[in-house]
Amino acid sequence: MEWSTQRDQNGWADRPEAQLNALLATDQRLTVAAAESCSGGGIAHRITSVSGSSAYFLGSIVAYSNRAKQQLLSVPAETLAQFGAVSAECARAMADGARGAFGADIAVSTTGIAGPTGATKRKPVGLVYIAVSYGETGRCETHHFSGDRGDVVQAAVDRGLALLVSAVRTVLASEAQS
Amino acid sequence: MEWSTQRDQNGWADRPEAQLNALLATDQRLTVAAAESCSGGGIAHRITSVSGSSAYFLGSIVAYSNRAKQQLLSVPAETLAQFGAVSAECARAMADGARGAFGADIAVSTTGIAGPTGATKRKPVGLVYIAVSYGETGRCETHHFSGDRGDVVQAAVDRGLALLVSAVRTVLASEAQS
Repeated sequence: MEWSTQRDQNGWADRPEAQLNALLATDQRLTVAAAESCSGGGIAHRITSVSGSSAYFLGSIVAYSNRAKQQLLSVPAETLAQFGAVSAECARAMADGARGAFGADIAVSTTGIAGPTGATKRKPVGLVYIAVSYGETGRCETHHFSGDRGDVVQAAVDRGLALLVSAVRTVLASEAQS
Repeated sequence: MEWSTQRDQNGWADRPEAQLNALLATDQRLTVAAAESCSGGGIAHRITSVSGSSAYFLGSIVAYSNRAKQQLLSVPAETLAQFGAVSAECARAMADGARGAFGADIAVSTTGIAGPTGATKRKPVGLVYIAVSYGETGRCETHHFSGDRGDVVQAAVDRGLALLVSAVRTVLASEAQS
């Protein structure tokens, strides 16, 4: 017999923002935040669509300008000059910066080329870096999403949320062992 | 004869984020930003859904915690203590704070009770304050939106965007006269 009582008809309980809430709403052991460039606030919008999210979600800095990335997320000017805003280095710095700005345990970040403009030969439309920062470490993924601007943003939001949930599970598991 | 060529079949050109783009994308005279509590990043998400928005949209601070409102948006602790986070005073301070944080000409803010939890006798679900700050002045509206959490958030996003467009038109008109 396959049990399906934990899923509603739309599969809502499978959504990462619902998983995040299930992991964190009750005992509030961890706080999370975000730094969003190409996802444009979509990660925050999805997390806050869940009632109770204010218990663990501190906020998101949507940094659409380089100045905002530097001043609000402490991305070094040298990182932007050397690697550009759409780079793994910038994504990592943004995630670290969001943790610092909000005082959060875990933060996720996105930076990429949503298109249709803004692409270069080395940085095509759909190139998105997604990073997550926690403890003394972190992860950064490189993606090449397809589709139009809306598709790329949506994919960045979905994958960012999934990476955040994965990091939360990792931290909770490590805390359970210690 | 009624002309309808400026509208696509879905009326997309009527949406406030499209109006904002039409007003600001070409000559980039003004920059805009946001400070979002109950709209949860939805205003940023809508603005950035438009290609070209990076020319005038600097970003949004989604401040879901009081600490974020104080530290990232410079909302005075006394304002939060005296009036609460869901108040016209806080909304005004958030809009001013977003302008300062991003160095933007105009900023919009939202703070409210999206529900279903968090309501009090004096602050029911659906109570949302929306402020916009520009020049040496600003406006703040009090709304009582109906519906569930998603409806209230959506209404806050829609009205916030409309108020932002209205402020942009006001500033552009005053600049044209001077």
